[in-house]
Amino acid sequence: MDKINDCISKIDKIDFQNADQMRDKIDRLAKPVNGLGRLEELGCHLAAIQRTTDIRVNDKMLIVFASDHGVSCEGVSATPRCVTYLQACNTVDGMTAVAALAKVADVNIKVVDVGIDTNQQYSGIVDKKIAHGTKNIAIEPAMSYEQAIQSIEIGMEVTESSINEGANIIVLGELGIANTTPSAAIISLFSKYDTESIVGKGSNISEERQLKKVGVVNNAIKLHQPDYTDPIDVLAKIGGFEIGSKVGAILCAAKNNTPVVIDGFISYSAAILACELCPDARGYIIASHQSAELGSQIAIDYLGLKPYLNLDLCVGEGTGAVLMVNLINSIKSVLDNMATLEQLDIEFTH
Amino acid sequence: MDKINDCISKIDKIDFQNADQMRDKIDRLAKPVNGLGRLEELGCHLAAIQRTTDIRVNDKMLIVFASDHGVSCEGVSATPRCVTYLQACNTVDGMTAVAALAKVADVNIKVVDVGIDTNQQYSGIVDKKIAHGTKNIAIEPAMSYEQAIQSIEIGMEVTESSINEGANIIVLGELGIANTTPSAAIISLFSKYDTESIVGKGSNISEERQLKKVGVVNNAIKLHQPDYTDPIDVLAKIGGFEIGSKVGAILCAAKNNTPVVIDGFISYSAAILACELCPDARGYIIASHQSAELGSQIAIDYLGLKPYLNLDLCVGEGTGAVLMVNLINSIKSVLDNMATLEQLDIEFTH
Repeated sequence: MDKINDCISKIDKIDFQNADQMRDKIDRLAKPVNGLGRLEELGCHLAAIQRTTDIRVNDKMLIVFASDHGVSCEGVSATPRCVTYLQACNTVDGMTAVAALAKVADVNIKVVDVGIDTNQQYSGIVDKKIAHGTKNIAIEPAMSYEQAIQSIEIGMEVTESSINEGANIIVLGELGIANTTPSAAIISLFSKYDTESIVGKGSNISEERQLKKVGVVNNAIKLHQPDYTDPIDVLAKIGGFEIGSKVGAILCAAKNNTPVVIDGFISYSAAILACELCPDARGYIIASHQSAELGSQIAIDYLGLKPYLNLDLCVGEGTGAVLMVNLINSIKSVLDNMATLEQLDIEFTH
Repeated sequence: MDKINDCISKIDKIDFQNADQMRDKIDRLAKPVNGLGRLEELGCHLAAIQRTTDIRVNDKMLIVFASDHGVSCEGVSATPRCVTYLQACNTVDGMTAVAALAKVADVNIKVVDVGIDTNQQYSGIVDKKIAHGTKNIAIEPAMSYEQAIQSIEIGMEVTESSINEGANIIVLGELGIANTTPSAAIISLFSKYDTESIVGKGSNISEERQLKKVGVVNNAIKLHQPDYTDPIDVLAKIGGFEIGSKVGAILCAAKNNTPVVIDGFISYSAAILACELCPDARGYIIASHQSAELGSQIAIDYLGLKPYLNLDLCVGEGTGAVLMVNLINSIKSVLDNMATLEQLDIEFTH
């Protein structure tokens, strides 16, 4: 816990002065004020995080944390458990959705095993396995308190290495069959909404299964009584290893004044835990897209975020976060290439 | 008019069978059904237009039609008239917003002068000048009926050349100080909404000026009585040269089974005219973004389109259309790189 507390103690608020300076810089470009709408907002946000109007976005690292979930045996997912491992390998090989999108957006990828249920090794997957998946939250806590801390610390560690290796934008993805179940549990607990409004179809399950999933989430919360004043306790009782690692990644990015682009539903639950641990971490989060998963709007509202994209994505993996990077590349190119009003020597008359 | 009629006669409906085949192809990829949401819809649409599931998107051509507007002397824009020419040159030199965004999205650019009010030549601008801007619609029709036809034919011609040179995606942009005024007039006329609901702040004008602009649009419609059953008459009386050229570009792309990505407010007005001339052209239009300009929702609803992005852009130039190309590149990469369910040898249990 010392490492986590140390990290949190080094997180400052983002710097709105830099955002204001970026606003001035953008307003001097040869276009109507606010003509580039949310791209301009994005530029200001990046400046506030990186403390400069000369934002650096050349090295984008997607970290895909992969882990299995004991609760998958309750039939809460349409996808067999073995797919976590298969897709981790496929991501390394560039053959998953997120890997395909990363090629377009110029994003590097690191796949980290924090709890895949396999004994197989695959070259290219970073081995940080905590256990062979979490326990089944329908009958016992997902993990021990120590494992929860460990999962966060791994996320911090991998993110710190990525930043040391040159990454200036951290992008988060995940693989974990059944992980919308613990995510829904976490979002329900904090938002205090009925689980019926939060628990979605995940990998496209039937309505019957969705009802079952609601029951599993309700029972898990009732059974384990997670203490929402202690986010580590919540993570341990109803979370997942990859969720914990994403919490650590967000905190570490924040400590390093580095933007962290989050993805959809699983990311929302990790972001909630990170912000409960350290409210100032919120400023470092770039909300990429609004997931099609039920409960997404509630999670986004709870976090107070405003995603840029709404493309009805629900595949996870980091797909929305990687698509968002195209917008980051775009505002960077605008700043690098556009002429200024001064160069044009014109004046507007509003 | 013969050339336009000939083009229209060669436009077929898009082929939904190819869309269905693409749906099958996408459903075989290793991800939950619909997991990539609107990206999948985009893939199906491209297949229906290009009549193949092996979509070709390697050569994207942005055509920026540039022209001046007589009505600019009524004070309907915050930007001085000379900026049309200056930004045409800057676009060629890669220094405008759209040029900056095009670098990221791997889009080539052709700038076409269809009516810039200058005698200067600039290397790299395609010279198809019809006149030194349109006439002031506050007192006379924007152009003659013959010029309206000519503007459409130029759009067809430039688009045909681009496709012959290898372009498989046409992207439309424009430059034309004061062009939200004729666009608003066209959208008002067809949608039959009050001009107050359509006429926006364009280049960020004051509310006082916006009221003036409403008056100009109302008077122009009243004075010239454009015949909405004849889109060429509408274009001639209250349109603009670049709007006409965009109409021609849409029709020509449709004739060539080529997707045409439209931008915002100016594009909506051109799309309305193109679809009035040939309803089947609508299927070839990819709506990129919802412009922040007032009246955009009305225009989009009238067209029955569903844009992919909503980033509060209102700079025009083709910025939203070019950002959209990142999504086109993305679905192409998904199709090229993703593993299939068969390769994974797994079965879902919904």
